[in-house]
Amino acid sequence: MNPFAHLRHRPIGSLERERPLVVACPPLRSNVNLARIVRAAGCCGVRRVIAAGSAAVDPKIARDSLEFLQLERRRSLAPVLKSLRQEGFRIVGLEQTTRSTNLCEYAFPRETVLVVGNERLGLTDDLLALLDDAVEIPVFGQPDSYNVATATAMALYEYCRQYPQG
Amino acid sequence: MNPFAHLRHRPIGSLERERPLVVACPPLRSNVNLARIVRAAGCCGVRRVIAAGSAAVDPKIARDSLEFLQLERRRSLAPVLKSLRQEGFRIVGLEQTTRSTNLCEYAFPRETVLVVGNERLGLTDDLLALLDDAVEIPVFGQPDSYNVATATAMALYEYCRQYPQG
Repeated sequence: MNPFAHLRHRPIGSLERERPLVVACPPLRSNVNLARIVRAAGCCGVRRVIAAGSAAVDPKIARDSLEFLQLERRRSLAPVLKSLRQEGFRIVGLEQTTRSTNLCEYAFPRETVLVVGNERLGLTDDLLALLDDAVEIPVFGQPDSYNVATATAMALYEYCRQYPQG
Repeated sequence: MNPFAHLRHRPIGSLERERPLVVACPPLRSNVNLARIVRAAGCCGVRRVIAAGSAAVDPKIARDSLEFLQLERRRSLAPVLKSLRQEGFRIVGLEQTTRSTNLCEYAFPRETVLVVGNERLGLTDDLLALLDDAVEIPVFGQPDSYNVATATAMALYEYCRQYPQG
């Protein structure tokens, strides 16, 4: 008798309250990365993803996330980040910078906007200027940086680990 | 003056000892997923990825990881998992099962083989029968499961969080 049996379609975890986490993406080079970020955000119970630019999100990759969360399109991220900060959100960039905190050691405020960077350019200077905090994921090998969707998944996981009830 | 300035090519974290973590993949539907797992493993300092099947690993996705780690090809995973268990590794499956532990609450043994599942089939019964433990990542929204490369990234992050020195 196999001690481990598959559980398909386990009911999703119930949050005590809605996650206020927001994910913000600049124009990305790869539509696949954007779609992967949207799917991971949906799985994590995120209700709001803000994407600058007009890249299509492939529903074959993003799956049901597009019905679960609101995907907001903006021409640029700066105005909406300023507005969210006014509403009490902390603007947290996922980037290697001179003043980044190790993601493993960062205590996320519940009301966080996680801002990710373009695959090549990372977070541009105008967005770096708007951050309250920057977090980075330790790299221990090669290549010396994570793919943006991979890094976002890790940051989403860390946030959810800190707020398992929402 | 921008408080956060980019740091490109920060020297990678130095491990006090080599990571004994091994990642094992069954034949996957998507070569892209395999390549993404290989890249994330390399970034995390993993030195050994075992892949069943003969799927090509796109170097544009996997980047320098292919020079950093050993990618071993096997016809099937079962024999090598049995052998690694004999060597003292714990065989840990990443899968929703009747007896899975929440990844956030799982204390990884240092010598772990992380076994991931196929995109559609998950971990097959013959592999489930070889597990010492199964871990799963809580899902809080839709879709109700993580992409395999996304889930692997989260599990790698959690392992590295527990063993920041290797």
